[in-house]
Amino acid sequence: MISSEEATQIIQQHLFLSKPVEVKLMKTLGRVLREEIRADRDLPPYDRVTMDGIAIDYQAINKGISSFFVERTQFAGMLPTQLSSMNHCIEVMTGAVLPIGTDTVIRYEDLEKEEKEGKVYFKLKNVEVKYQQNVHHQGSDSKEGEILVQSSTKISSAEIAVAAAVGKSALWVSQKPLFAIISNGDELVDIESTPLMHQIRRSNTYMLLAALENLRMKADTFHLPDNKAIIERKLANILSPKSVFDVILLTGGVSAGKADFVPQVLENLGVEKLFHQVAQRPGKPFWFGKTKANKMVFALPGNPVSTFVCFHKYVVPWLKASLFESNSLDLPQAILKEDFSFKPSLTYFLQVKLNYENQQLLATPIEGGGSGDFANLLECDGFLELPAEKTHFKAGEKYPFIRYR
Amino acid sequence: MISSEEATQIIQQHLFLSKPVEVKLMKTLGRVLREEIRADRDLPPYDRVTMDGIAIDYQAINKGISSFFVERTQFAGMLPTQLSSMNHCIEVMTGAVLPIGTDTVIRYEDLEKEEKEGKVYFKLKNVEVKYQQNVHHQGSDSKEGEILVQSSTKISSAEIAVAAAVGKSALWVSQKPLFAIISNGDELVDIESTPLMHQIRRSNTYMLLAALENLRMKADTFHLPDNKAIIERKLANILSPKSVFDVILLTGGVSAGKADFVPQVLENLGVEKLFHQVAQRPGKPFWFGKTKANKMVFALPGNPVSTFVCFHKYVVPWLKASLFESNSLDLPQAILKEDFSFKPSLTYFLQVKLNYENQQLLATPIEGGGSGDFANLLECDGFLELPAEKTHFKAGEKYPFIRYR
Repeated sequence: MISSEEATQIIQQHLFLSKPVEVKLMKTLGRVLREEIRADRDLPPYDRVTMDGIAIDYQAINKGISSFFVERTQFAGMLPTQLSSMNHCIEVMTGAVLPIGTDTVIRYEDLEKEEKEGKVYFKLKNVEVKYQQNVHHQGSDSKEGEILVQSSTKISSAEIAVAAAVGKSALWVSQKPLFAIISNGDELVDIESTPLMHQIRRSNTYMLLAALENLRMKADTFHLPDNKAIIERKLANILSPKSVFDVILLTGGVSAGKADFVPQVLENLGVEKLFHQVAQRPGKPFWFGKTKANKMVFALPGNPVSTFVCFHKYVVPWLKASLFESNSLDLPQAILKEDFSFKPSLTYFLQVKLNYENQQLLATPIEGGGSGDFANLLECDGFLELPAEKTHFKAGEKYPFIRYR
Repeated sequence: MISSEEATQIIQQHLFLSKPVEVKLMKTLGRVLREEIRADRDLPPYDRVTMDGIAIDYQAINKGISSFFVERTQFAGMLPTQLSSMNHCIEVMTGAVLPIGTDTVIRYEDLEKEEKEGKVYFKLKNVEVKYQQNVHHQGSDSKEGEILVQSSTKISSAEIAVAAAVGKSALWVSQKPLFAIISNGDELVDIESTPLMHQIRRSNTYMLLAALENLRMKADTFHLPDNKAIIERKLANILSPKSVFDVILLTGGVSAGKADFVPQVLENLGVEKLFHQVAQRPGKPFWFGKTKANKMVFALPGNPVSTFVCFHKYVVPWLKASLFESNSLDLPQAILKEDFSFKPSLTYFLQVKLNYENQQLLATPIEGGGSGDFANLLECDGFLELPAEKTHFKAGEKYPFIRYR
């Protein structure tokens, strides 16, 4: 049996090596970029008008001209036209190209419209006009060829906007691992079934599916009976180097029970055991290994709270480190709100409800009925991680917490 | 022109009234429950064995019996069998029904296996055995008919597990609004196009699609030319009471420009204007209204940074209040890291990069090239909201911030 810290260390030494894959732009949100996004031309690509109003030659201002004959209007999306005289102006709309022969834009708010002899003029109000005002100059944000987004960036809506602007309708990003979720246990029946007295419905599978969906991960699900030959045959398929799965999450069948065939079967199938059993509660029977083709196998204990703890304590940080290179091992801390004692020399994952008081995060223990009482998870927000070497935990002390909600 | 606070108030008075819809369980993550989830039978449904080991009658312990003949093994998923003698035991596996005539489970770790005359016995090690230990009693977590999850709960993986356990393969949840994202502007071309000198590619549409996807919302997208008749005809369809859309997000065409037809067209189509123009930068031309059939129309300014600010400042909190009844108007605060000045009497949304130092959230201004410089959003994490009535903002002062990353 190893400590929870050792388990984490071993798991973090076996990250998923994600290959780059090309994916349509609108499927890349939250993923990790594996190429550089460069400006395909200057940004902005032309001297861009940023206010509705008129474009003029600033020399006119220097010469004291304050009324401008309107030659024409130039809208956004039109080729630039040419100003023919310093006394004139061209009406321009936001987004338009700055007309040739102009350098400064005066917004409508600073102008008065006048009509003289059927001709339209704009007269400057008593405001200061600055040279080149209201013009967003070509290349002032970025030059053509410049790197806008570095490889390894996590893609948010801002990166998607920029990718669209430079014409990237697809991006190279890190491949996501595909998960297989495998439950086992003869007492488990399907969600649509009416269980007999001695049966219960599968729930771990759905919990894991949902928790993976939270991370934008996809999984296929399987259920195996407590029959060693069938387990071995089915697992052989799922674990084969040719299968589509990168990560295998098993739930149940890893304890010391007579129907707990999983560790034995995994070894028969040549899966290298990296550890079995962790000094923690709940979740002690946790088994971790990898196939020769580097598929990772997390065999989680089947009690629902144990499954949930192990998933959030080990699988989530492993996934984040694999994909985002983030050091998500530094857990946030919360303050224990009530005294609590736990005697065995095991890391204890205490179910807690979190709340803010005076800008501090407080954790109230809500113990529930043990690792089978998954209804208790409904009352809680996460687990406070209490170290194995202590027995008495005092209100006011700070401990790392793992949030699932 | 109204203040940013007034704009928020008006928007919050026009929430989306979400109807309940029945949705498959695995599509309900992050949604709001609109029914109660009750236990369809006791939880656990039977006295459940929680350790692999043997089940005994505790009277044996009282009488000093410490070696038990194994009658048989009872696995999880089997109907309970009956213990025939106090000197005997039944081997039991985690998840099994507690055998009839037994009340206490001793785990393998506390036992030694013995064989005498071809018969198998388990001998108790020198450990204390507690009455009813390692049994998770029927109904101890919840009783049949008890409410496990209240209506209005936001569904996490824990709620999904519980729903599965009580046989709910579908749940009544709040309907999501369907969005229409409509860009307009003749200078805009498609992502796959090579723009001419005076054109740029559409990016707001993709930014909004991604930002909505972050909130698990779906949208259809449209692009309209700067042609009043076409805009009016197409908008009439999208805004009609019969259309599938609940919320219309327009970008562009709401300023004072000669091609800014949107406010006029919306009024022609009978959309009630609730406000136009907000005393803020960027994002001043923002227009908000609703149709007679209560479709909400957010007509956002077309400059990318303005679109982004208005979406995160107004649309996101409106959506959260509509769906989750959450008071997400209380923004978190961050500390300004450098002095900053802004003279106009407008709420200023300053682009900032956030970082933690000494457990404090610091906001460093990264100004960029104005509301057209969306590449600057790449450097930032959000907007610091600087109040209109102040001009000089000192390093060390705290202001609300809106995070987009």
